[in-house]
Amino acid sequence: MRQFPRPLQDLIKLLRDFPGVGLKTAERYAFHLVKLPQEKRQQITETIQKAGESMRHCQLCGQMDTQNPCTICTDPKRDPATICVVSDQQDIVAIEKTGEFNGRYHVLGGVLNPLEGITPDSLSIKSLLHRIQETKPHIKEVIIATNPDLEGESTAMYLARNLKSLRVRVTRLARGLPVGASIEYADEITLSSALKERKEV
Amino acid sequence: MRQFPRPLQDLIKLLRDFPGVGLKTAERYAFHLVKLPQEKRQQITETIQKAGESMRHCQLCGQMDTQNPCTICTDPKRDPATICVVSDQQDIVAIEKTGEFNGRYHVLGGVLNPLEGITPDSLSIKSLLHRIQETKPHIKEVIIATNPDLEGESTAMYLARNLKSLRVRVTRLARGLPVGASIEYADEITLSSALKERKEV
Repeated sequence: MRQFPRPLQDLIKLLRDFPGVGLKTAERYAFHLVKLPQEKRQQITETIQKAGESMRHCQLCGQMDTQNPCTICTDPKRDPATICVVSDQQDIVAIEKTGEFNGRYHVLGGVLNPLEGITPDSLSIKSLLHRIQETKPHIKEVIIATNPDLEGESTAMYLARNLKSLRVRVTRLARGLPVGASIEYADEITLSSALKERKEV
Repeated sequence: MRQFPRPLQDLIKLLRDFPGVGLKTAERYAFHLVKLPQEKRQQITETIQKAGESMRHCQLCGQMDTQNPCTICTDPKRDPATICVVSDQQDIVAIEKTGEFNGRYHVLGGVLNPLEGITPDSLSIKSLLHRIQETKPHIKEVIIATNPDLEGESTAMYLARNLKSLRVRVTRLARGLPVGASIEYADEITLSSALKERKEV
């Protein structure tokens, strides 16, 4: 028993492929799974299969939904002339919760990261440019909503450069102090953005 | 789309029951799973089922193995008179890798933690005492190998108190400086243990 029994090892190996999961975490998950009652384990595997079978990529925006095109792209109440570009689908849920946006989305599927081999071709950038060129009546505004970190910023810059030629208004989410922040502890870049972008009251 | 589609939500809910997994992590795992090719997803669910079906608790030591009693408890080359008590099966693999122990094990299934409702009755303590009383020839030594943290120590103390009456030698893993440690940065308790337990060279 210098190793776990083979069926556990197989399971641990597969669980290590989950995002951000290392060996120790995979071991914990594997023990969790084999200790569950059989019905619960059955429920988990059935739910995985069911989700896998019923979810599909929307051919327009790239998000996953039970229908293709997705519920947002087919919703006539949503403004087709504004596209909000996000890196991942999880960001859509966050933006939807604000209730401030009534356009459509485009999911890039990540952000540019040359060190990890994520180039423009790995993301849904071509389909975004194509979508903007093909959509009639014309798309008026593209809001770039990638994270305000290094990769998110460079992805936004890359997109902005490519979108300019399509004569569309390109905007970026505002930067500034988040609610509840303390000026004393704010980082320099955030505070300098907040100063530069200061607003009349 | 203020929420994920129902099949994704169901999956996220189940994944949140994994140990140490919060909402955001469960969402990442769910997206990872639904984006996998169908064959890979099939492989995962089959491996979960197979591990669940083939692993069983050893009736003697409580660890999970493909056979019951487990390979260690049935190995005639291992000394039945020494039992090493661990909180979790993962610890067995670590101890086995040292090659320094040739006895048998007993898995408690956790450590005492009254705040989280883990009392002596939640752990395999009764079965340990019973096992020590019933095993012939007598068990000579019980090595308590719980973690040297608050819960691990109090579990060890509780066990030691209960084991004393059975007239068995009870030992605990040594405490001291780990290999590669820096005395300057060692915590007080470790350093004071290392001093108290100093050895002739």
